Amino acid sequence: MMREFFYPSSIAVFGVADTPRNLAKNIIMNCEDMGFNGDIFPVGREEGSINGRSILVNTDALPTGIDLAVILVPASMVPEAVDACGRKGIRHAVISTGGYREFNDQDNEAERQLLAVARQHGIRFIGPNCIGAICTQSGLCTPFNPMQPKHFKSGNVSIIAQSGGVSTQVAYHFSDEHVGFSKIISAGNKLDLGEVDFIKYLMEDDDTDQIHLYLESIEKGREFLQPVKRCSKPIVVFKANVSRTSARVAKSHTAALANNDSVLDGFLKQAGIVRVRDIHDMTVCAKALRLPPLRGDRLAVISFSGGFAVILGDACEAHGFECPPLPRKLLDEIEEFRRAGVIKMSNPMDFGDVHDIRALYFALERCLSLDYIDGLVLSLTYSPRLAQMFGKSEDFRAPLLETVKQLCLQKRKPISLSFFAERMYIDELKRRGTFPIFTNPEESVRALRMLRDYWRRRPGEHNNGNE
Amino acid sequence: MMREFFYPSSIAVFGVADTPRNLAKNIIMNCEDMGFNGDIFPVGREEGSINGRSILVNTDALPTGIDLAVILVPASMVPEAVDACGRKGIRHAVISTGGYREFNDQDNEAERQLLAVARQHGIRFIGPNCIGAICTQSGLCTPFNPMQPKHFKSGNVSIIAQSGGVSTQVAYHFSDEHVGFSKIISAGNKLDLGEVDFIKYLMEDDDTDQIHLYLESIEKGREFLQPVKRCSKPIVVFKANVSRTSARVAKSHTAALANNDSVLDGFLKQAGIVRVRDIHDMTVCAKALRLPPLRGDRLAVISFSGGFAVILGDACEAHGFECPPLPRKLLDEIEEFRRAGVIKMSNPMDFGDVHDIRALYFALERCLSLDYIDGLVLSLTYSPRLAQMFGKSEDFRAPLLETVKQLCLQKRKPISLSFFAERMYIDELKRRGTFPIFTNPEESVRALRMLRDYWRRRPGEHNNGNE
Repeated sequence: MMREFFYPSSIAVFGVADTPRNLAKNIIMNCEDMGFNGDIFPVGREEGSINGRSILVNTDALPTGIDLAVILVPASMVPEAVDACGRKGIRHAVISTGGYREFNDQDNEAERQLLAVARQHGIRFIGPNCIGAICTQSGLCTPFNPMQPKHFKSGNVSIIAQSGGVSTQVAYHFSDEHVGFSKIISAGNKLDLGEVDFIKYLMEDDDTDQIHLYLESIEKGREFLQPVKRCSKPIVVFKANVSRTSARVAKSHTAALANNDSVLDGFLKQAGIVRVRDIHDMTVCAKALRLPPLRGDRLAVISFSGGFAVILGDACEAHGFECPPLPRKLLDEIEEFRRAGVIKMSNPMDFGDVHDIRALYFALERCLSLDYIDGLVLSLTYSPRLAQMFGKSEDFRAPLLETVKQLCLQKRKPISLSFFAERMYIDELKRRGTFPIFTNPEESVRALRMLRDYWRRRPGEHNNGNE
Repeated sequence: MMREFFYPSSIAVFGVADTPRNLAKNIIMNCEDMGFNGDIFPVGREEGSINGRSILVNTDALPTGIDLAVILVPASMVPEAVDACGRKGIRHAVISTGGYREFNDQDNEAERQLLAVARQHGIRFIGPNCIGAICTQSGLCTPFNPMQPKHFKSGNVSIIAQSGGVSTQVAYHFSDEHVGFSKIISAGNKLDLGEVDFIKYLMEDDDTDQIHLYLESIEKGREFLQPVKRCSKPIVVFKANVSRTSARVAKSHTAALANNDSVLDGFLKQAGIVRVRDIHDMTVCAKALRLPPLRGDRLAVISFSGGFAVILGDACEAHGFECPPLPRKLLDEIEEFRRAGVIKMSNPMDFGDVHDIRALYFALERCLSLDYIDGLVLSLTYSPRLAQMFGKSEDFRAPLLETVKQLCLQKRKPISLSFFAERMYIDELKRRGTFPIFTNPEESVRALRMLRDYWRRRPGEHNNGNE
């Protein structure tokens, strides 16, 4: 029953007008821009047309068999619109309209009316006070603010966000970071469907590999925990509304109540959920989770700059990692590749004066083979001219990324890769998408922390009690 | 005497060869790419030419009156090169060669020799084991790794970095963030000139408005403090090497010894220095310091998304700010501008359903005028289509930035501005450079924290004892 919310074969949009400031017409334009292939029926109070589609003023004119309605009419007219949907056999709706409990926190008559009409017709709905759903695979894009869906990057991370604005920003930021997403769901007041329903659906959704949540509150802890604990896909949570200051505005925003943050933290750990601190870290975590498991705290660190080896050492310690000494024999073998030979090898390892890609491959393979090394952090320089110095190949990146990827698979250990370079080069590498690329060295260590958290917390995994 | 290091009228580069893997020739190419106008004389052991400049094999052939030598020959040959400089009247040198105390931590004979020859000729030098200096105003670019100096953004922040790799990354990252820099200095082993000398010079340098430092150690605390305490330009420090793990590699990198971090923290506070945690935050702080003073903890927050109002509330509290309630009358007046009128106003203020730029200007002006508001956080949406909805202007950004800037100047209070938008739009706004733009809402609050730290710590300012 949930599939029609994301892959409808046809939709009706209520509240459309051919005027410059009409918001509902943006829903139609967003779907068109994103390549939605199904039929779209605009419904409004006055005749007109939107991109060649006539606005229906009489809902009787709607065909039967429409999968989904998106409703953005004044709150007082919502029950009537829902009733019209029911009469036309529509069983799924996104109620975008706001002005319910988030505005008036007393017992809410308008919500009761809405729920009654929907129940009467067996209609399930997302909202009210929401922007609904985006699905990059189907092209559905129900937000009523004008977006740029052509820029969206398609992939297999699905995101549930308790805020329309945040879900929009998530769509932009994931795309900017070249982390593809499948669905973004913003459920608003959750009068009918809530996070738990969406998590259950995404657990079974073939287009979803990871489930990320932006939450301002968790109301029904036990209900939430039950599906989460048997979910085999990683679940990642960014929980906002953790302060007195934000509680004031969160209440009027999504009717969310703040939770005790340390209680929540324990709750998330118990549920096997990785907690992240902001939207950017959702993308970092999404990339980290593409790497092989990290099953311990012991890292080898290789940096093409001494300064970044220092910064990485600080980051490792800050994130609870160790950099154990490497065998003297191995360090000697690596040192033999060097030119000037001025830098002494240690862990973190300053590769600054080794200009030989074979030395790098040798070091990566040997370090990952050590049974007391759980993962590797690799920080490389990149500039076009330096790349030329690296050997015969004009572009060492494609074979480098392939080698690193193969080593990860072979050794079943993660290599967390970042470049210090101009952003245009880093973006170019991220865009390739063949292997996760982190933005800077510190971020690559933070990513491994998230990966370690995930494998420690994963249900059924040995928990070594270190947390 | 220091000016010649940054604005030399001519330079000699020692160690140049016309071979693919020669590093010294990159120095010449970097200077050329950056538009250095002075003469450049390559010196090497074999004849050849670099971009039409003949390599001099006999230093007697060098003209007199050269301002600066950049030396990248094997360590054993450095004294001879320095002696040649002395004989030709060169009094300033960058010694790029490594292989000194950072490699052999015992009493270092090679360094003693180098120092003796330099003293004998009255030569002052940066290094050894360094990449020297970049100056966007003169076009000098002595790093020996191939760079892309055409992409560098010129401006008035000068940076001293105890790591060549970090200084390179600083150049890229400042430029990517559209924060212009004047000089980047990487002093390596600081056998002759060190941070204190550079700080003293930059304090008087007309092209420098802010001094930023990347440090792995502070060796002579009292010497360091003395110029810093009378510096009227802001000083910003990113101190790495704060862990046992990094101490191992830092020692072999720049011969730096770790300092006790909490002692250091107190020391920096006392010196009126703003401490930041990474390279990116150096750019954030550089932008923050362009805003008017922040003289307290009380902020008004305006967000075009309820979710970001919540996130901003969390950020304000995390960074030690308050969001005091605003007068009911003012909130009512702002609410009158709204369309649907579903969102209740508070502080943080959710401007989500106010689509009127006049309402924004009204709210900004009134909030900043309140005597119990010290600064303002403004988080806006931006997309081209949404911009069109904002009024007659196709592009509301130019007048918006100008209005915000004027309000800051008029009220002598900062407005910390960020957009939630695709990165391309944010970059476009940053590039304009008319007013500081932060990358995301959380960053805009972090920026205000740095600004507050600066004004609290500033020598001669009232310290209200809250730190």
